[in-house]
Amino acid sequence: MRFTFVSLFPELIEGYFSASILGRAREAGKIAIDYRNPRDYSTNRYRKVDEAMVGGGAGMLMFPQPLDDTIRAIREESSEVRMIFLAPAGKPFRQRDARRLALKESHLAFVCGRYEGIDERIVELHADEVFSVGDAVLTGGELPALMVCDAVSRLLPGVLGNADSLAEESFEEGLLEAPAFTKPDEFRGKRIVSEYLKGNHSKIAALKKQMALSRTKHYRPDLYQRVKAQS
Amino acid sequence: MRFTFVSLFPELIEGYFSASILGRAREAGKIAIDYRNPRDYSTNRYRKVDEAMVGGGAGMLMFPQPLDDTIRAIREESSEVRMIFLAPAGKPFRQRDARRLALKESHLAFVCGRYEGIDERIVELHADEVFSVGDAVLTGGELPALMVCDAVSRLLPGVLGNADSLAEESFEEGLLEAPAFTKPDEFRGKRIVSEYLKGNHSKIAALKKQMALSRTKHYRPDLYQRVKAQS
Repeated sequence: MRFTFVSLFPELIEGYFSASILGRAREAGKIAIDYRNPRDYSTNRYRKVDEAMVGGGAGMLMFPQPLDDTIRAIREESSEVRMIFLAPAGKPFRQRDARRLALKESHLAFVCGRYEGIDERIVELHADEVFSVGDAVLTGGELPALMVCDAVSRLLPGVLGNADSLAEESFEEGLLEAPAFTKPDEFRGKRIVSEYLKGNHSKIAALKKQMALSRTKHYRPDLYQRVKAQS
Repeated sequence: MRFTFVSLFPELIEGYFSASILGRAREAGKIAIDYRNPRDYSTNRYRKVDEAMVGGGAGMLMFPQPLDDTIRAIREESSEVRMIFLAPAGKPFRQRDARRLALKESHLAFVCGRYEGIDERIVELHADEVFSVGDAVLTGGELPALMVCDAVSRLLPGVLGNADSLAEESFEEGLLEAPAFTKPDEFRGKRIVSEYLKGNHSKIAALKKQMALSRTKHYRPDLYQRVKAQS
C-alpha cells in the first residue's frame, strides 16, 4: 500500500514512521510513504498558497491553483489513487472505513488542509472521500491523515505480528473492549476481576461481552444504540 | 502550558513539534514538551513493559509497574499535572474539552497505550480523564495524544496569529462550518457562491448559517440533533 501526503509541512509527518509498527512496515516494504508539498506547485512568484476568504471571515484559506496542480500531478502518475480529504465537515472515519480501504485500495493520498482550510471547489473537484476524525479543531489535517494511515496500515497482511489480535478489539463488533489485565494478580491493592483468573473460557467470554456492553452503554450511547438496532 | 507524553516511542511524537504553529509556539515558550518512557522505569532486567493478558486474549498488554512508577514520578515533580489517558474506551474528545483544558490547566500528561493497551488497574489508579479520539483502532495512543495537545495548544493566548479565527469555526456552535472560498471567482468552471461576492455581510452570515445547518444535518445527524435540542 502506498500513502501520499499532500501537506505544506511534511516534516510534521515523517517522524511518525521512524519506529515501531509503521516504521517496521515501511522498512519491510509493506507500506510506502511519500509527500507532495503544494508550495512546490504554486505558480505565485513567492510560492504563496493562502489567500483571504471571499465574503469575509477571519484567517486565510488555501487557494485552488497549487492544490489543483498537486492533485493532478499525483493522479497523472497513479491511476489507482484514492484522494482522501481530511476536514471537520466530513464523514466521521470509522473502523469499517479502515477495513474497506485496507482491503480494496492500493494507493491513498491524503490532502491535509492548513490555515482555515481549503477552497471548497477543490474538494468538489477532487475528493473521493472526506473524513473527519474527532470533534475538535486542529491546526491542520496532518494528524487526522496519520490516523487514517495508521488504522489502515495495521490491517494490512504482515504488518501486525499477531493477526489474531485484529479479531477482538474495540469497534470491530461495534462495542468498546472489556477491561484487560495482566500480571500480577494484585497491584497496589487492586485485584484482577476474579473470573479472569479461573480459566473457564466460556465464562470469561460471557463476562467480557457483558462488560463491553455496559462500558459502551455508559461511554458511547451512540454506539450502543447502533448495536442494539442491529441485533 | 506544559505537555508531558508518556510513551514507549517519543521519536514518533517529536517531529510534530518541528515546524508550523506548534513549532513556533514551542520556540516562543508558549508551550513546553517533554517525554517519559515507561521502559526507563521498568524494574525488569530486560526493561520489559508488556505481558500476556490474563484470562486469554491475543496480544500483549502494558503491565502495571513501569507505568505506575512513571506516573508517580511525574506527579511527584508536578502537583498541577492532569493525567489524561488515550483509549478507545473513553469519552469522545470534543472541542469543549479542548477549551476547558486550555482555560483551566497548566500541565497535561498524556499516557499513550501500545500493544493491546494498558492494564485496567493503572487507569483506575491514575486517570483524571480518559479520552477517545475517533472510532478507529490505532497502533498506539500517540496520535490521539497529539490531537488533544494540538487542539488545546491552538486555543492558548498568543499561539494563533489571528485570535478572531477562533470565533467562527467548526464545532464552536456545535455545527460544521459553511463552505469557504477564496480567489479566483471562477476556477475550472466552478464559481464561488454568488452571495459571497456581493458583500452584504448580514445576508452572507444568514446564508452561511443555513449552509452550516444543512451540512451538519447531512454529515453529522448526531451533532444536528444536539443543536436542535439546545435551541
